[in-house]
Amino acid sequence: MKIMITGFNPFNGEKVNPAQEVLKFLPDTIRGHRLVKLNVETSFEKAASQVYDALLAEMPDYCINIGQAGGRSGITPEKIAINWVDASIADNTNYQPKGQKIVAKGMDGYFTQLPINAIVKNIRNSGLPAKVSNTAGTYVCNYLFYKVQYWRNTEFPNLKGGFIHIPYLPSQVLQSNQPSMSLNDITNAMMIMLKTVIDYDGLKDITSLYD
Amino acid sequence: MKIMITGFNPFNGEKVNPAQEVLKFLPDTIRGHRLVKLNVETSFEKAASQVYDALLAEMPDYCINIGQAGGRSGITPEKIAINWVDASIADNTNYQPKGQKIVAKGMDGYFTQLPINAIVKNIRNSGLPAKVSNTAGTYVCNYLFYKVQYWRNTEFPNLKGGFIHIPYLPSQVLQSNQPSMSLNDITNAMMIMLKTVIDYDGLKDITSLYD
Amino acid sequence: MKIMITGFNPFNGEKVNPAQEVLKFLPDTIRGHRLVKLNVETSFEKAASQVYDALLAEMPDYCINIGQAGGRSGITPEKIAINWVDASIADNTNYQPKGQKIVAKGMDGYFTQLPINAIVKNIRNSGLPAKVSNTAGTYVCNYLFYKVQYWRNTEFPNLKGGFIHIPYLPSQVLQSNQPSMSLNDITNAMMIMLKTVIDYDGLKDITSLYD
Amino acid sequence: MKIMITGFNPFNGEKVNPAQEVLKFLPDTIRGHRLVKLNVETSFEKAASQVYDALLAEMPDYCINIGQAGGRSGITPEKIAINWVDASIADNTNYQPKGQKIVAKGMDGYFTQLPINAIVKNIRNSGLPAKVSNTAGTYVCNYLFYKVQYWRNTEFPNLKGGFIHIPYLPSQVLQSNQPSMSLNDITNAMMIMLKTVIDYDGLKDITSLYD
Repeated sequence: MKIMITGFNPFNGEKVNPAQEVLKFLPDTIRGHRLVKLNVETSFEKAASQVYDALLAEMPDYCINIGQAGGRSGITPEKIAINWVDASIADNTNYQPKGQKIVAKGMDGYFTQLPINAIVKNIRNSGLPAKVSNTAGTYVCNYLFYKVQYWRNTEFPNLKGGFIHIPYLPSQVLQSNQPSMSLNDITNAMMIMLKTVIDYDGLKDITSLYD
Repeated sequence: MKIMITGFNPFNGEKVNPAQEVLKFLPDTIRGHRLVKLNVETSFEKAASQVYDALLAEMPDYCINIGQAGGRSGITPEKIAINWVDASIADNTNYQPKGQKIVAKGMDGYFTQLPINAIVKNIRNSGLPAKVSNTAGTYVCNYLFYKVQYWRNTEFPNLKGGFIHIPYLPSQVLQSNQPSMSLNDITNAMMIMLKTVIDYDGLKDITSLYD
Repeated sequence: MKIMITGFNPFNGEKVNPAQEVLKFLPDTIRGHRLVKLNVETSFEKAASQVYDALLAEMPDYCINIGQAGGRSGITPEKIAINWVDASIADNTNYQPKGQKIVAKGMDGYFTQLPINAIVKNIRNSGLPAKVSNTAGTYVCNYLFYKVQYWRNTEFPNLKGGFIHIPYLPSQVLQSNQPSMSLNDITNAMMIMLKTVIDYDGLKDITSLYD
Repeated sequence: MKIMITGFNPFNGEKVNPAQEVLKFLPDTIRGHRLVKLNVETSFEKAASQVYDALLAEMPDYCINIGQAGGRSGITPEKIAINWVDASIADNTNYQPKGQKIVAKGMDGYFTQLPINAIVKNIRNSGLPAKVSNTAGTYVCNYLFYKVQYWRNTEFPNLKGGFIHIPYLPSQVLQSNQPSMSLNDITNAMMIMLKTVIDYDGLKDITSLYD
């Protein structure tokens, strides 16, 4: 099996993005399965084309996108991608789409194919906070998540996709009263997430499984 | 035109529900359009059957559900209903469904038919905080919102639906450091919401309109 | 009896200050006691000199300062003024003192002479949120509060002083997810506060009284 | 030089207290100075007597108390101890004092003798969030902090004291949306705090120093 995992580069004036930092600490194989790591630009169009090209080149079984969710205190796997973009700030190419669909004729929303309840349970069991999120926002994160789901429904029928939001690193919130998580803990949580994806691969109705 | 508007009764130990309180202060007609007000039980099944029966009896043009979103500081019209229920507390009939679809073969998500960006803009212009929300949660609120959308797609093709979350009343947060909004302000915001719905009725692509 | 009550003008880019707005709606007498209302500049030195001059001119029994505490959800009477200033932003005269004592030889802290527990209880009984605060910050609010307490200990032995922080108005948080309170509710809370001060005047150990 | 450092045991239903956990990872000497570690009960009277006895037995130069501040996202050295106790929950001996002075004739407040601005600066420079706090609350933490300050002023004139609040551990907030900090990061921050205390020992006006 092959798992592609992506991480965005820093945006909105930040010097680091925990999503890109954590990729550096993940192995190349997990339990014999290959892990393909991809850095993507925090840009609506660039991220989409980078991931689309990589999907074509690698034909992975899973495409898991990691993104920073400033203000969240734990790991939050996303339940649904929605067909909507409404950017409150410009992306890294200075593009700021407001209130529009991502795909004109696309479905309103697509559920993830990841076993997110099991992921949350296993991360908590390791002593780290986690919670299912029901919104990935309306910025680049949700945009990429939706695009992957749309491609799955139109071009890559065997692909399974999902999005994992992670907190700020401590160094990003030195003076701000915002929650954070250490890079070491985020890395451990991502390893648990990946092992859970592997363990649940092939099971039916995985999104409703808690055990 | 006929607009049905519903409000839940108190739940989770609360003595009031702002959604039900605000209904008492809304008029029976707005700009010549009839407003049908309906109190519903904070119960997955009862709320659904109460609203379904009322839709059959009244055949309204709009079905707008109002619900309390404890912890939110402003009026938050919801963007999307999702096909998922996962209750962290039991409802008023002691029913607590965990991790399952609402409708087995239903779509993952349905966008609202309300002009939510315009509603947010108009409420802000009146001096009150408002923001589009991209998640109505996975409790009774989202359940009812999803059911109405599902019925629209299967039985009531001319129905338009939407969900508006409102903050706690001040009396519900006496000691809790949670945000609240006065009943008078909530009522004013609901009047603006209703007038906006009427003003935008019949316009195309209203969900993307900011003006 | 004579009660002086002060409110700051807008600062930090705000167009209004709820403290100054609420003064407009307070009466000139309460239960036969005179209420002297004073607008003060959000400036360390100007506010202090304005209040000092007014204390000399009016010789009030109480000096109650009202200030905006952005981010707080209820009315928060302050317990203690501390001998420290550390401004994170400049005041309205572009003065920004960092890490220093307010009065070189002053006490580290002074407790208020207001019956703050009773005020909190009475405001809650009226259906509005309130809580004792143990820090008035290290900006202009605490500075003025401390100065009044210092003057009480050196020049005005019969003066009683206190500081009441109030939330943002709804119009100040249109898009910000911050809590707010309507001007009407703040006004009602300030009336309850003033009546409680009058009711408890002359009682001993009022700061520890809950009833 | 001898530094005594204390940590409370778990309270309010928690299974761990980060203050007690971090003590386990601190060394016995830092730069040649002895570190005396003391576990104390989360009890108003027991903690006070445990620390008083240890002060008599050890005669340390510094007494630094560490406590858990649930809900805070960074390390928060406290500025001031106040002469007030008002417990919202019972302590570990089921004692819950309400609204009263700690020492009948004591000062209203005492500033810490720790270089808290320098501590905050140095912790931030290491990449971890920190902020001066101006309230240690009115529970056991402030009580112990005040008692030590009072003893300093009456019996131990050479003693210097201070209180450091630290966040929850990740394992304490698995499902709660509250911020946390890893034990490894808390330990590093406490090492920086101790080294800063040592570096600034003997300097004048340390509380106002930022550099």
